[in-house]
Amino acid sequence: MDYTQVAREYGTPLYVYNLDYMAQQYAALKGAFEGKKSLIAFAMKANSNLSVVACFAALGAGADCVSFGEVKRALIAGVPKYKIIFSGVGKRDDEILGALTEDILFINVESEAELMRVEAAARELGRAARVSVRVNPAIDARTHPYISTGLKENKFGVSVEVAKRLYIYAKNSPFLEPIAIHFHIGSQIVELEPIEQAARKAAELAKSLIALEIDLKFFDVGGGIGVTYKDEKTIDLAAYANTVFGALQGLDMTIICEPGRFLTANGGVFLTRVIYEKYSEGRRFVVVDGAMNDLIRPALYGAYHRVEAIGAAGDETLCDVVGPVCESGDFFAKNIVLPPIERGDLLVVHTAGAYGFAMSSNFNTRRRAAEVAVDKNGYRLIRERETYEDIFASEMRLLSAR
Amino acid sequence: MDYTQVAREYGTPLYVYNLDYMAQQYAALKGAFEGKKSLIAFAMKANSNLSVVACFAALGAGADCVSFGEVKRALIAGVPKYKIIFSGVGKRDDEILGALTEDILFINVESEAELMRVEAAARELGRAARVSVRVNPAIDARTHPYISTGLKENKFGVSVEVAKRLYIYAKNSPFLEPIAIHFHIGSQIVELEPIEQAARKAAELAKSLIALEIDLKFFDVGGGIGVTYKDEKTIDLAAYANTVFGALQGLDMTIICEPGRFLTANGGVFLTRVIYEKYSEGRRFVVVDGAMNDLIRPALYGAYHRVEAIGAAGDETLCDVVGPVCESGDFFAKNIVLPPIERGDLLVVHTAGAYGFAMSSNFNTRRRAAEVAVDKNGYRLIRERETYEDIFASEMRLLSAR
Repeated sequence: MDYTQVAREYGTPLYVYNLDYMAQQYAALKGAFEGKKSLIAFAMKANSNLSVVACFAALGAGADCVSFGEVKRALIAGVPKYKIIFSGVGKRDDEILGALTEDILFINVESEAELMRVEAAARELGRAARVSVRVNPAIDARTHPYISTGLKENKFGVSVEVAKRLYIYAKNSPFLEPIAIHFHIGSQIVELEPIEQAARKAAELAKSLIALEIDLKFFDVGGGIGVTYKDEKTIDLAAYANTVFGALQGLDMTIICEPGRFLTANGGVFLTRVIYEKYSEGRRFVVVDGAMNDLIRPALYGAYHRVEAIGAAGDETLCDVVGPVCESGDFFAKNIVLPPIERGDLLVVHTAGAYGFAMSSNFNTRRRAAEVAVDKNGYRLIRERETYEDIFASEMRLLSAR
Repeated sequence: MDYTQVAREYGTPLYVYNLDYMAQQYAALKGAFEGKKSLIAFAMKANSNLSVVACFAALGAGADCVSFGEVKRALIAGVPKYKIIFSGVGKRDDEILGALTEDILFINVESEAELMRVEAAARELGRAARVSVRVNPAIDARTHPYISTGLKENKFGVSVEVAKRLYIYAKNSPFLEPIAIHFHIGSQIVELEPIEQAARKAAELAKSLIALEIDLKFFDVGGGIGVTYKDEKTIDLAAYANTVFGALQGLDMTIICEPGRFLTANGGVFLTRVIYEKYSEGRRFVVVDGAMNDLIRPALYGAYHRVEAIGAAGDETLCDVVGPVCESGDFFAKNIVLPPIERGDLLVVHTAGAYGFAMSSNFNTRRRAAEVAVDKNGYRLIRERETYEDIFASEMRLLSAR
C-alpha cells in the first residue's frame, strides 16, 4: 500500500482501511466455525463507517449494534434486518420501539427493568419482541479495566439467577419471545480460559432453560477477541471455536459471534504528517498534524500503537510523537525510537482500524479526519474531511437568530 | 434555574450554560487586574460554542485560540482581531497563513522551527508577523499529568535560554515583530506558588529582553486558574493579580490572562435522564441517557463531577451513575450516594461548562447533545441536537456513489 499517494491525494490526518484484510479476518473467523451454524455479527462500535459495514454485509455478516443509530447504519449499509442485534445497558424507549418496528433479529436485554420496557413497547406494537438476556458470568477477562465487562461489579448484564427468572417471565409473556442467550466479558481478550468459563456457564444456563421448554435458538458468545498492537499473543481461532463447540455439546443452537476490533483494528492505519521536530531540554518531540481528538486510545487507555516513519532512515533516537492539542495527554507514542525525521514526513500509526475514527471529536475545533478504503480494485474516499462550515452550521444559525 | 423545564423543552442529554454566571466570573477576574492594563482572552478550547464566545466578546474579552478553527470561531462570534491570540505546539502552514491574513494580535510561537515557519509565511505575505514566544519555565503546577504543561519534559514552549535566542532572532528579522512574552504551566491550578515562580522567571526574561531593546508590550500569564469541582480550595483572585503585579514591577506591560475553565466550568451543567435503575450483585447502577461520548472527563482524567438528582428524596444509598456506552469506562460518578430514583428522573451533572461538549464525540453512533444558554432574559437554544442525518450525510453520499 502506497500511503504517500493517498496522503497526497486526500491530505492528513487520514484514516485508511484495507477492506481486503478485513474480509480475510471475517473469512478466517467464519471458517473457524465451519460445520456449525454461525452468524458473525460485526460489532459496529469499533468502526461504523457505512462503507466498512457494507463490506461486511456483502460477505454475509450481521451487525451487533449498541444504539439505534447503529441499527440505522446497519440497515443503510445493507445488513438484513434478520441479522441485526441491538445490545447495550441503556436503551431509550424510542430506541426500543425503533428496533421492534424495524423487526431486527433480537434485542439483547441487560436488566429486569429493561425487559419490562421491551415488553411494554411490544404490547404497544401488538407483537412479540424477540429477546436475549445478557448474562454476566462474573469472570475476569484480564483486560483493561475500562473494557472489562464480565466482572460482577460491572454495569453489564444480569447474574445467572436473575437471567433464569427473566427467561421464565419472558416465556410466559405473549409480548416476549426469548430466542437467544448472550454473554460478553470484555474487549481485547488474549486468553482463552475466561471465554471457556463464561461459555460453559452460559451453556449450562441454556440447557436448564431448554429443559423448561424455552426454545433458545442462538448462543451469542459476544466478541472481545484480542489483536496484536505490539507483541500480544492472540487467541488461536480454531481453539476459540473448539472452546465454544465444547461448551455447546448437546445443544443445537446457532452460534453468534460479535467481533469488532478483531475484524478491523489491524486493517486500519492513521496517517499523520510531521509539522515540526522539536528538542526541549534534551527531549525529542515529533509534532504531527494528528491529535488526541482523532485517536484518543493512547490518552484514554494508555494504549500502544506502533508508529512508523515512511521513508525515513538513519540512526534511531528516543522521542515522543505528540499532537497539536493543548494537553500533555495528547500523544500517539512516548519513548519510542524513530530515525531522523523531516518536516512533512509521513507517519503511519498502526492498528487504528478499531476505536479510532469512531471515538474522534472536534476538540480544539479540529475538523475530523477523512476516511479512505482500499481494496484490490484501488482506493476511494468513504468519508469526507469535515469543513469548518460543517462544524459551525448549527451554532451559526442560532447565533444570528438571536 | 428550572432545569426540569429546559429538559422537557429541549430533551436530554443537554448542556445548559448560565451566561450571567460566566459574565460575573469575567468581571471578577477583570476587576482583580484593575489599575493595570489587562486583556482577558477567553481560552476557547474549554467551551467554543459561538454564543458563549459572543457573550465574552460583548464584555470586551479577547480570545485565546489553539487552532485556526478557533480563530474563525472567535471572529464569527465578534471578538475583534486585535484581541485574538493563536497558540499551540503544532500549527500547520495554512493555519499560520490564515492567522497572519486575519491580522490577529499575535501568534504565540512554541518552538524554533515554528518561528521559522511564521517568518516564512510573513515574508510570503510581505508583512511582519507579531509574535510571542512561549517560555516553558520548568515548574510543576501540581495538577493532573495530562493538563500539566510547564514541566521541562512537556512538549510545550521553549526554555528560557532558547526563548532569548528566538527573541533576538525575531528582533533582527524584518518579518517578525516580537511584542509579547507568554507562559502557561497547566490547567486547574489551585496553588499560587507555581504561578508566582513562573511569572518571576518570565518577568526576568522580559527585563533582559527589553534591555536589548526588544519592545515587549504584553505579558501573557496564560490561564489555568482552578475551579471547585468537589471541595478544592481555589486561588484568591486578588492574591493572583497581586502575584502578577509583583512579578511585573518595573515593567510597563499589558497583562494578558487566558482563563477557560475559570470562566465557564461552574457556569455549565449537563442534564441527563434516568433510563433504568439496576441492581446487580448488590451494586446499584443508575443508568442514564448521557454517556462518555457527551462528557469524557470522568473516563479520561478520573475527574469528579457532582451529581444531583432533581426532586428525588429519601434515604441515600451508594451507587454508580453510568451511561449506555458499552465500556466500563462509561461513568459519570462512582460510589456516590443518591436518594431513591425513578425512571425519567433528571440528574444534574455539575461543573460541566468546560471541557464538556467541547470534547464530545459520536462514539456508539450517539448524536451529540444540544446546548442551551440561560441569562436574565430567559433561555434559548445555542446548538441543535445532532440528527442521524447530520452524522451519516458524508458517508451516505460516498456509499451510494460507489
